[in-house]
Amino acid sequence: MSLLIDDVGELVTNDHTLGDGPLGVICDAALVVDAGRVLWAGPRRSVPEGAATERYDAAGRCVIPGFVDSHGHLVFAGDRAAEFAARMSGRPYAAGGIRTTVAATRAADDAALDAGVVRLAAESLRSGTTTFETKSGYGLTTADEARSLRVAGRHTDEVTFLGAHVVPPEYAGRPDDYVDLLCGEMLDACAPLARWVDVFCDRGAFDGDQARAVLQAGMARGLAPRVHANQLQHGPGIQLAVELGAASADHVTHVSGADIDALASGTTVATLLPAAEFSTRAVYPDARALLDAGVTVALAADCNPGSSYTTSLPFCIAVAVREMGMTPSEAVWSATAGGARALRRTDVGRLSPGARADVVLLDAPSHVHLAYRPGVPLVSRVWRGGDLAWSAQ
Amino acid sequence: MSLLIDDVGELVTNDHTLGDGPLGVICDAALVVDAGRVLWAGPRRSVPEGAATERYDAAGRCVIPGFVDSHGHLVFAGDRAAEFAARMSGRPYAAGGIRTTVAATRAADDAALDAGVVRLAAESLRSGTTTFETKSGYGLTTADEARSLRVAGRHTDEVTFLGAHVVPPEYAGRPDDYVDLLCGEMLDACAPLARWVDVFCDRGAFDGDQARAVLQAGMARGLAPRVHANQLQHGPGIQLAVELGAASADHVTHVSGADIDALASGTTVATLLPAAEFSTRAVYPDARALLDAGVTVALAADCNPGSSYTTSLPFCIAVAVREMGMTPSEAVWSATAGGARALRRTDVGRLSPGARADVVLLDAPSHVHLAYRPGVPLVSRVWRGGDLAWSAQ
Repeated sequence: MSLLIDDVGELVTNDHTLGDGPLGVICDAALVVDAGRVLWAGPRRSVPEGAATERYDAAGRCVIPGFVDSHGHLVFAGDRAAEFAARMSGRPYAAGGIRTTVAATRAADDAALDAGVVRLAAESLRSGTTTFETKSGYGLTTADEARSLRVAGRHTDEVTFLGAHVVPPEYAGRPDDYVDLLCGEMLDACAPLARWVDVFCDRGAFDGDQARAVLQAGMARGLAPRVHANQLQHGPGIQLAVELGAASADHVTHVSGADIDALASGTTVATLLPAAEFSTRAVYPDARALLDAGVTVALAADCNPGSSYTTSLPFCIAVAVREMGMTPSEAVWSATAGGARALRRTDVGRLSPGARADVVLLDAPSHVHLAYRPGVPLVSRVWRGGDLAWSAQ
Repeated sequence: MSLLIDDVGELVTNDHTLGDGPLGVICDAALVVDAGRVLWAGPRRSVPEGAATERYDAAGRCVIPGFVDSHGHLVFAGDRAAEFAARMSGRPYAAGGIRTTVAATRAADDAALDAGVVRLAAESLRSGTTTFETKSGYGLTTADEARSLRVAGRHTDEVTFLGAHVVPPEYAGRPDDYVDLLCGEMLDACAPLARWVDVFCDRGAFDGDQARAVLQAGMARGLAPRVHANQLQHGPGIQLAVELGAASADHVTHVSGADIDALASGTTVATLLPAAEFSTRAVYPDARALLDAGVTVALAADCNPGSSYTTSLPFCIAVAVREMGMTPSEAVWSATAGGARALRRTDVGRLSPGARADVVLLDAPSHVHLAYRPGVPLVSRVWRGGDLAWSAQ
């Protein structure tokens, strides 16, 4: 089956050779999908004759690539609504709350963990996400980390080992012993189940030396690095990420000029997670400064029960525009093409020939509406790999 | 037909005599609806036998009263996405942009205006709003204001005359002549079509004397007053609202101690519109200071194409908690019971016996999730007047 998506008022391709600006916008456009891939994208008047066997009428609305959410923690049990409500009455956010979710996750059976990922993946699909990464990090034993990765791997190819999320309670006061466990037995068991290795390098979690040891141990087993860097305070995480050639440094909230220079000169994407700052009442990262320095910026949801319990990239886009100095176009690019860069993927995050046909139809005439209409569910229809994956009533 | 909504994990009644705290929360609850009204609300174990002919299983989820959105501008044509995108690149918000929508609205036919209200009302229903107010204010001629009110009146009982939105271009430099028109011919034609009279009393709109003249002229024709006060700068709007016994002063962003004292001592609700500050990158009102002084606070969406193009009260709740010092419980109260107070309605905004059965089922265990899960559409099912009005897939 091939499909012509016709009468697209505004088509965001993210290919500047096909359309205007970095988003590669084509007005009054059409898109041809064949065998799960984009076969053709261009102005409606130039659609190749007989291009497709079926036709969908977008009725002048906007089509964008599916969101690529490059940072999530979907394998967990329980919630932390009470901690959230207390924080909103004045208590500060601390990484230690992670241990609440560790206890709940260890106590949950596989079916419950699986059901949680299914629920959140479906929710994220409804808001336009067609590729998502997810991490372990609420197990923190060899067995619980491995099963978290197995659960994750049933739902996405982008699986990240985050045994180095926090030091678990049974290693309190002996963090280096836990790092030894991570770098030995735990990575031996977990590396075959993941693509990426990640470390939370921050206050209350792991320092630069510990982070380097874990990342290098993962890399020695074939995993590619990414780093939770500089969320809670300034630290060595960003420099370490760039030095090791990490695909992404995530959070990037507290940065120095040297951090920005390092990111601008390297290949590491800065993945910003505005919903985390929203839900912890923290200062927002300065996306404008990063963009102006030439850093590649991604936006991701950071879905997790402690600091950012959302799956909505449209919400992240609206907050990034409001709070971080991004234009609506930059924010949409960062949540699609930027996310793909942060996962080193070339097959998603764009709608140009050869890309996977992950297509989102908005109930709006322009991508600007994702920021202009905050909180309104605008995603009307989602195709993934050319197949209809969700449609609003 | 009568309906038992059973196995409600958390029922928000907004009746402190029925449950805990100002929200009147009952855990493990049930609700009985008969003839469009709430017949009974209480703990599940005490449901009266044979109370209802039908049963709906809420499966442990949270039920709240439908949102009461007491401030909207739904009768308009066109959008201002380009103005929004320019503002997010640095241009400030000014009331003058309203004239763009005035031109589009005057040029639209009745069917187009009607279709716009239908679309936005359906959207707001999907996010849990079961009562909404809407205003004229994009016509600014006697004929165009009257037809805007007629359009509004086809969709809601809460219709507000806002001929005093801005001075229209044809009266540029002669604002007092426009006030004379408002206070004479225009109110003669419009008062029979509305319940409320409102004035935008602010920089670039109307001063205190002009606002008083319009409000008093409306009151003389049987309309009840409400006031757009102190959005863009400090001014006389709040004091005027309290003095005239207005149901609500709306925005309430730039306030003095005397303003807070006036609100606390009077019967005027302070209706805060956080999405407007969100979308104009303006400073947020200090809900905490108002609440601590004993002021009754409502939250509303202020849906309009210039400064706040959202219909989502869940979004407003999340922003109010993040930015305005409200707890999740206070914000949920303000978007339900608070909105009802701002419209002087006793039949909505609560789920206690006698209330209209406007019932919202959340796909979440607690009302806290409305703030804890920002951007995620959590509304699963909506009954209005006891009838199923919307349900998610």
